[in-house]
Amino acid sequence: MSSNPYVQQTASAVQETFYQALADADIDTLMSVWVNDDAVLCILPSGERLSGLDAIRETHEEVFAQGAVRVSYQELQSFETGAVAVHHVLEQFEIDGHPELPNKFLAHATNIFLRTPLGWQLMLHHASHASGEAELPTVKQPEYLH
Amino acid sequence: MSSNPYVQQTASAVQETFYQALADADIDTLMSVWVNDDAVLCILPSGERLSGLDAIRETHEEVFAQGAVRVSYQELQSFETGAVAVHHVLEQFEIDGHPELPNKFLAHATNIFLRTPLGWQLMLHHASHASGEAELPTVKQPEYLH
Repeated sequence: MSSNPYVQQTASAVQETFYQALADADIDTLMSVWVNDDAVLCILPSGERLSGLDAIRETHEEVFAQGAVRVSYQELQSFETGAVAVHHVLEQFEIDGHPELPNKFLAHATNIFLRTPLGWQLMLHHASHASGEAELPTVKQPEYLH
Repeated sequence: MSSNPYVQQTASAVQETFYQALADADIDTLMSVWVNDDAVLCILPSGERLSGLDAIRETHEEVFAQGAVRVSYQELQSFETGAVAVHHVLEQFEIDGHPELPNKFLAHATNIFLRTPLGWQLMLHHASHASGEAELPTVKQPEYLH
Protein backbone atom coordinates (compact mmCIF):
# COMPACT_ATOMS: atom_id res chain seq x y z
CA MET A 1 0.00 0.00 0.00
CA SER A 2 1.16 3.50 -0.76
CA SER A 3 1.41 6.12 1.95
CA ASN A 4 0.35 8.77 -0.54
CA PRO A 5 -3.27 9.65 0.23
CA TYR A 6 -4.11 10.47 -3.40
CA VAL A 7 -3.31 7.11 -5.01
CA GLN A 8 -6.67 5.59 -4.17
CA GLN A 9 -8.70 8.72 -4.92
CA THR A 10 -10.90 9.56 -7.86
CA ALA A 11 -10.15 12.65 -9.94
CA SER A 12 -13.29 14.21 -8.42
CA ALA A 13 -11.88 13.74 -4.93
CA VAL A 14 -8.57 15.33 -5.96
CA GLN A 15 -10.53 18.21 -7.49
CA GLU A 16 -12.36 18.63 -4.16
CA THR A 17 -8.97 18.75 -2.41
CA PHE A 18 -7.88 21.51 -4.83
CA TYR A 19 -10.89 23.73 -4.06
CA GLN A 20 -10.70 22.95 -0.34
CA ALA A 21 -7.04 24.04 -0.36
CA LEU A 22 -8.09 27.37 -1.93
CA ALA A 23 -10.79 27.76 0.72
CA ASP A 24 -8.27 26.91 3.47
CA ALA A 25 -5.42 29.02 2.00
CA ASP A 26 -3.34 25.85 2.36
CA ILE A 27 -0.44 26.24 -0.07
CA ASP A 28 1.18 22.85 0.58
CA THR A 29 -2.05 20.94 -0.03
CA LEU A 30 -2.76 23.10 -3.08
CA MET A 31 0.64 22.30 -4.57
CA SER A 32 0.32 18.58 -3.76
CA VAL A 33 -2.54 18.12 -6.21
CA TRP A 34 -0.47 19.24 -9.23
CA VAL A 35 1.55 16.91 -11.44
CA ASN A 36 5.22 17.29 -10.53
CA ASP A 37 6.13 18.62 -13.96
CA ASP A 38 6.93 22.13 -15.08
CA ALA A 39 4.51 21.80 -17.98
CA VAL A 40 1.60 22.34 -15.56
CA LEU A 41 -0.53 25.33 -16.48
CA CYS A 42 -2.94 27.48 -14.48
CA ILE A 43 -5.07 30.19 -16.11
CA LEU A 44 -6.70 32.53 -13.59
CA PRO A 45 -10.03 34.35 -14.10
CA SER A 46 -7.97 37.56 -14.26
CA GLY A 47 -6.53 36.34 -17.57
CA GLU A 48 -3.10 35.70 -16.07
CA ARG A 49 -1.29 32.54 -17.20
CA LEU A 50 0.85 30.75 -14.61
CA SER A 51 3.21 28.33 -16.31
CA GLY A 52 5.04 25.83 -14.11
CA LEU A 53 4.99 24.90 -10.44
CA ASP A 54 7.03 27.89 -9.21
CA ALA A 55 4.71 30.44 -10.81
CA ILE A 56 1.64 28.64 -9.46
CA ARG A 57 3.11 28.53 -5.93
CA GLU A 58 4.28 32.15 -5.90
CA THR A 59 1.01 33.62 -7.13
CA HIS A 60 -1.10 31.54 -4.76
CA GLU A 61 1.16 32.50 -1.84
CA GLU A 62 0.44 36.13 -2.73
CA VAL A 63 -3.29 35.42 -2.95
CA PHE A 64 -3.33 33.51 0.34
CA ALA A 65 -1.40 36.31 2.08
CA GLN A 66 -4.63 38.27 1.69
CA GLY A 67 -6.72 35.43 3.13
CA ALA A 68 -8.53 32.34 2.03
CA VAL A 69 -10.42 32.24 -1.28
CA ARG A 70 -14.18 32.08 -0.81
CA VAL A 71 -15.06 29.67 -3.58
CA SER A 72 -17.77 27.13 -4.16
CA TYR A 73 -18.30 25.09 -7.28
CA GLN A 74 -20.71 22.92 -9.16
CA GLU A 75 -19.62 20.24 -11.58
CA LEU A 76 -21.32 20.53 -14.96
CA GLN A 77 -19.60 17.80 -16.90
CA SER A 78 -16.80 15.27 -16.81
CA PHE A 79 -15.30 12.52 -18.91
CA GLU A 80 -12.49 10.14 -18.24
CA THR A 81 -10.26 7.73 -20.12
CA GLY A 82 -7.70 5.45 -18.51
CA ALA A 83 -5.08 8.18 -18.30
CA VAL A 84 -6.89 11.53 -18.47
CA ALA A 85 -9.90 12.95 -16.63
CA VAL A 86 -11.53 16.23 -17.68
CA HIS A 87 -13.87 17.99 -15.27
CA HIS A 88 -15.70 21.16 -16.23
CA VAL A 89 -17.14 23.14 -13.33
CA LEU A 90 -18.81 26.44 -12.58
CA GLU A 91 -16.99 28.29 -9.81
CA GLN A 92 -18.49 31.00 -7.63
CA PHE A 93 -16.13 33.46 -5.97
CA GLU A 94 -16.97 35.94 -3.23
CA ILE A 95 -14.63 38.85 -2.63
CA ASP A 96 -14.67 41.53 0.05
CA GLY A 97 -12.71 44.75 0.34
CA HIS A 98 -12.32 45.44 -3.38
CA PRO A 99 -14.98 48.04 -4.21
CA GLU A 100 -13.78 48.12 -7.82
CA LEU A 101 -14.76 44.47 -8.29
CA PRO A 102 -18.13 42.77 -8.09
CA ASN A 103 -18.32 40.97 -4.75
CA LYS A 104 -19.62 37.80 -6.37
CA PHE A 105 -18.79 36.38 -9.75
CA LEU A 106 -18.95 33.09 -11.60
CA ALA A 107 -16.15 31.47 -13.57
CA HIS A 108 -15.98 28.56 -15.98
CA ALA A 109 -13.19 26.15 -15.13
CA THR A 110 -11.75 23.25 -17.07
CA ASN A 111 -9.66 20.93 -14.89
CA ILE A 112 -7.53 18.28 -16.59
CA PHE A 113 -6.12 15.47 -14.46
CA LEU A 114 -3.55 12.85 -15.45
CA ARG A 115 -3.31 9.44 -13.84
CA THR A 116 0.25 9.21 -12.51
CA PRO A 117 1.99 6.68 -10.24
CA LEU A 118 0.90 9.01 -7.40
CA GLY A 119 -2.75 8.89 -8.48
CA TRP A 120 -4.83 11.48 -10.32
CA GLN A 121 -3.02 14.83 -10.44
CA LEU A 122 -3.91 18.20 -11.88
CA MET A 123 -2.14 19.06 -15.13
CA LEU A 124 -4.11 22.08 -16.33
CA HIS A 125 -6.59 24.44 -14.66
CA HIS A 126 -8.22 26.98 -16.96
CA ALA A 127 -10.63 29.38 -15.27
CA SER A 128 -12.33 32.40 -16.83
CA HIS A 129 -15.12 34.83 -16.03
CA ALA A 130 -18.57 33.60 -16.99
CA SER A 131 -21.08 35.98 -18.52
CA GLY A 132 -24.56 36.36 -17.10
CA GLU A 133 -25.53 35.32 -13.60
CA ALA A 134 -23.27 35.92 -10.61
CA GLU A 135 -24.54 33.00 -8.53
CA LEU A 136 -24.56 29.28 -9.00
CA PRO A 137 -27.90 27.96 -10.19
CA THR A 138 -29.97 26.62 -7.33
CA VAL A 139 -31.64 23.84 -9.30
CA LYS A 140 -28.83 21.48 -8.40
CA GLN A 141 -27.38 21.73 -4.94
CA PRO A 142 -23.94 23.34 -5.24
CA GLU A 143 -21.05 21.81 -3.34
CA TYR A 144 -20.25 24.55 -0.87
CA LEU A 145 -16.86 24.73 0.72
CA HIS A 146 -17.02 26.41 4.13
CA MET B 1 -9.01 3.18 -46.16
CA SER B 2 -11.57 5.57 -44.80
CA SER B 3 -13.08 8.29 -46.93
CA ASN B 4 -13.17 10.60 -43.91
CA PRO B 5 -10.33 13.08 -44.29
CA TYR B 6 -9.74 13.39 -40.54
CA VAL B 7 -9.00 9.75 -39.70
CA GLN B 8 -5.34 10.02 -40.70
CA GLN B 9 -4.79 13.45 -39.22
CA THR B 10 -3.00 14.48 -36.07
CA ALA B 11 -4.87 16.44 -33.42
CA SER B 12 -2.75 19.47 -34.43
CA ALA B 13 -4.01 19.20 -37.99
CA VAL B 14 -7.62 19.01 -36.81
CA GLN B 15 -6.98 22.05 -34.63
CA GLU B 16 -5.64 23.89 -37.70
CA THR B 17 -8.86 22.94 -39.54
CA PHE B 18 -10.89 24.41 -36.65
CA TYR B 19 -9.12 27.78 -36.79
CA GLN B 20 -9.15 27.80 -40.59
CA ALA B 21 -12.92 27.25 -40.52
CA LEU B 22 -13.29 30.29 -38.23
CA ALA B 23 -11.14 32.31 -40.60
CA ASP B 24 -13.19 31.09 -43.58
CA ALA B 25 -16.59 31.46 -41.84
CA ASP B 26 -17.18 27.86 -42.97
CA ILE B 27 -19.85 26.47 -40.64
CA ASP B 28 -19.91 22.94 -42.07
CA THR B 29 -16.16 22.47 -41.73
CA LEU B 30 -16.28 24.04 -38.27
CA MET B 31 -18.96 21.59 -37.14
CA SER B 32 -17.16 18.62 -38.71
CA VAL B 33 -14.25 18.88 -36.28
CA TRP B 34 -16.44 18.36 -33.18
CA VAL B 35 -17.19 15.00 -31.62
CA ASN B 36 -20.73 13.98 -32.61
CA ASP B 37 -21.94 14.06 -29.01
CA ASP B 38 -24.09 16.58 -27.21
CA ALA B 39 -21.62 16.69 -24.34
CA VAL B 40 -19.32 18.90 -26.46
CA LEU B 41 -18.61 22.24 -24.82
CA CYS B 42 -17.41 25.57 -26.20
CA ILE B 43 -16.55 28.51 -23.93
CA LEU B 44 -16.17 31.78 -25.83
CA PRO B 45 -13.88 34.68 -24.79
CA SER B 46 -17.10 36.62 -24.05
CA GLY B 47 -17.73 34.23 -21.14
CA GLU B 48 -20.64 32.55 -22.91
CA ARG B 49 -20.91 28.76 -22.56
CA LEU B 50 -22.20 26.83 -25.56
CA SER B 51 -23.26 23.35 -24.53
CA GLY B 52 -23.98 20.84 -27.28
CA LEU B 53 -23.72 20.81 -31.06
CA ASP B 54 -26.88 22.85 -31.72
CA ALA B 55 -25.77 25.74 -29.51
CA ILE B 56 -22.30 25.73 -31.08
CA ARG B 57 -23.75 25.76 -34.60
CA GLU B 58 -26.33 28.48 -33.91
CA THR B 59 -23.92 30.88 -32.25
CA HIS B 60 -21.25 30.44 -34.92
CA GLU B 61 -23.84 30.95 -37.66
CA GLU B 62 -24.66 34.28 -35.99
CA VAL B 63 -20.97 35.16 -35.75
CA PHE B 64 -20.29 34.18 -39.37
CA ALA B 65 -23.30 36.22 -40.54
CA GLN B 66 -21.16 39.22 -39.60
CA GLY B 67 -18.17 37.89 -41.50
CA ALA B 68 -15.16 35.68 -41.00
CA VAL B 69 -13.27 35.71 -37.72
CA ARG B 70 -9.81 37.22 -38.05
CA VAL B 71 -7.87 34.89 -35.81
CA SER B 72 -4.31 33.66 -35.65
CA TYR B 73 -2.83 31.41 -33.01
CA GLN B 74 0.35 30.13 -31.51
CA GLU B 75 0.60 26.79 -29.77
CA LEU B 76 2.17 27.05 -26.33
CA GLN B 77 1.86 23.50 -25.10
CA SER B 78 0.37 20.12 -25.83
CA PHE B 79 0.26 16.62 -24.44
CA GLU B 80 -1.32 13.48 -25.73
CA THR B 81 -2.24 10.02 -24.50
CA GLY B 82 -3.69 7.28 -26.66
CA ALA B 83 -7.22 8.63 -26.43
CA VAL B 84 -6.96 12.30 -25.48
CA ALA B 85 -4.92 15.21 -26.84
CA VAL B 86 -4.76 18.56 -25.06
CA HIS B 87 -3.51 21.61 -26.92
CA HIS B 88 -3.10 24.97 -25.24
CA VAL B 89 -2.78 27.94 -27.57
CA LEU B 90 -2.70 31.71 -27.52
CA GLU B 91 -5.26 33.16 -29.93
CA GLN B 92 -5.13 36.65 -31.42
CA PHE B 93 -8.38 38.19 -32.62
CA GLU B 94 -8.79 41.30 -34.73
CA ILE B 95 -12.17 43.01 -34.80
CA ASP B 96 -13.38 45.96 -36.85
CA GLY B 97 -16.52 48.03 -36.58
CA HIS B 98 -16.99 47.70 -32.81
CA PRO B 99 -15.63 50.94 -31.34
CA GLU B 100 -16.58 49.77 -27.84
CA LEU B 101 -14.15 46.84 -28.09
CA PRO B 102 -10.38 46.78 -28.49
CA ASN B 103 -9.61 45.98 -32.14
CA LYS B 104 -7.04 43.38 -31.15
CA PHE B 105 -7.03 41.06 -28.19
CA LEU B 106 -5.40 37.85 -27.09
CA ALA B 107 -7.17 34.83 -25.63
CA HIS B 108 -5.97 31.68 -23.91
CA ALA B 109 -7.54 28.56 -25.36
CA THR B 110 -7.54 24.98 -24.15
CA ASN B 111 -8.57 22.52 -26.86
CA ILE B 112 -9.30 18.93 -25.86
CA PHE B 113 -9.50 16.30 -28.61
CA LEU B 114 -10.69 12.70 -28.32
CA ARG B 115 -9.56 9.92 -30.61
CA THR B 116 -12.75 8.54 -32.12
CA PRO B 117 -13.36 6.03 -34.94
CA LEU B 118 -13.47 9.15 -37.17
CA GLY B 119 -10.07 10.34 -35.98
CA TRP B 120 -9.20 13.12 -33.54
CA GLN B 121 -12.22 15.28 -32.83
CA LEU B 122 -12.76 18.34 -30.66
CA MET B 123 -14.60 17.67 -27.38
CA LEU B 124 -14.00 20.91 -25.48
CA HIS B 125 -12.82 24.38 -26.50
CA HIS B 126 -12.31 26.81 -23.64
CA ALA B 127 -11.20 30.31 -24.68
CA SER B 128 -10.86 33.35 -22.44
CA HIS B 129 -9.39 36.84 -22.57
CA ALA B 130 -5.70 37.00 -21.71
CA SER B 131 -4.35 39.83 -19.60
CA GLY B 132 -1.43 41.94 -20.74
CA GLU B 133 -0.29 42.15 -24.34
CA ALA B 134 -2.72 42.35 -27.25
CA GLU B 135 -0.43 40.77 -29.83
CA LEU B 136 1.17 37.38 -30.15
CA PRO B 137 4.80 37.36 -29.09
CA THR B 138 7.14 37.60 -32.05
CA VAL B 139 9.89 35.42 -30.58
CA LYS B 140 8.29 32.36 -32.07
CA GLN B 141 6.74 32.67 -35.48
CA PRO B 142 2.96 32.60 -35.05
CA GLU B 143 0.94 30.39 -37.35
CA TYR B 144 -0.99 32.97 -39.31
CA LEU B 145 -4.12 32.03 -41.11
CA HIS B 146 -4.47 33.98 -44.32
